[in-house]
Amino acid sequence: MASTELSETGTNRYDIFDCSVARTLEHVGERWTFMVLRDAFYGIRRFDDFQASLGVARNILTKRLAKLVDAGIMRKEPYQEHPTRYEYVLTEKGRDLVPVLTSLLAWGDKWETENEPPVRLIHTTCKNVMHSQAVCSECGDEINAFNLHLDPVPQIVIERVVKAKLAAHTT
Amino acid sequence: MASTELSETGTNRYDIFDCSVARTLEHVGERWTFMVLRDAFYGIRRFDDFQASLGVARNILTKRLAKLVDAGIMRKEPYQEHPTRYEYVLTEKGRDLVPVLTSLLAWGDKWETENEPPVRLIHTTCKNVMHSQAVCSECGDEINAFNLHLDPVPQIVIERVVKAKLAAHTT
Repeated sequence: MASTELSETGTNRYDIFDCSVARTLEHVGERWTFMVLRDAFYGIRRFDDFQASLGVARNILTKRLAKLVDAGIMRKEPYQEHPTRYEYVLTEKGRDLVPVLTSLLAWGDKWETENEPPVRLIHTTCKNVMHSQAVCSECGDEINAFNLHLDPVPQIVIERVVKAKLAAHTT
Repeated sequence: MASTELSETGTNRYDIFDCSVARTLEHVGERWTFMVLRDAFYGIRRFDDFQASLGVARNILTKRLAKLVDAGIMRKEPYQEHPTRYEYVLTEKGRDLVPVLTSLLAWGDKWETENEPPVRLIHTTCKNVMHSQAVCSECGDEINAFNLHLDPVPQIVIERVVKAKLAAHTT
């Protein structure tokens, strides 16, 4: 992805956006990376098992795993000596990606699935088939497009959107 | 991204995965696409305003907006006649991406931000600065890497992971 954008724009302006969504996508925005994470949540740990599951070329898998280790999302743990072999395990930072994966899953199940969802999520605490919902950390109520406000509002939004709304009210 | 993968693998095996995460990333996995959505949630609607906000090349922005309209995530609405000009508005399907964006934001704020997060989310219902939390749609309790189970478990996971665990228990 990055290389495609670079060839089109000549500069990766994206990197300089001071935005946590952008920073997160730097690490997990590549689609094979998400597939690796999905398998890691299933419990897959070894290179050959990731490879067998995903059918991805070994050189791509090597790059994606190395990137996840560099980012602190997975760590390498030796499981054999002479020669030393490693497996790849999710860190706390990696396990914290659960809401990202489950929100992608919930949206895909709702909007991109014609029949039954291909994979069902079961919450082992309550034993129900469920989907992920996003709530407010403070009051526990649902968050949605109509009850969220971002602070600060970027200058461009103030200039173009807020001023336009004010103008509409005063005419 | 797709073109990069294609050149590396010769085939886009990714597309054939029967997985809602994969399907969602088909639509929203491109990073500029997410930046467009972020601005749309701020209230930006017009091509020139997206362009001024993102600093993205006009040809890329045109492609990303067209893809979002094709996917039913945004729709075009005329705001001027002679000549007709359109603005781009989030649909219900687009607004339903809030949990995807807020979970990416929450993770980035926690793990990729050294000082204060650059943007704060305020829940207008309770007026608090907050972050998005993922909970179970059925019982309302937190979901995390330790209390979720996927059904069905893919064959490769049964073969490699489950059998390995059973073997460890019986020796």
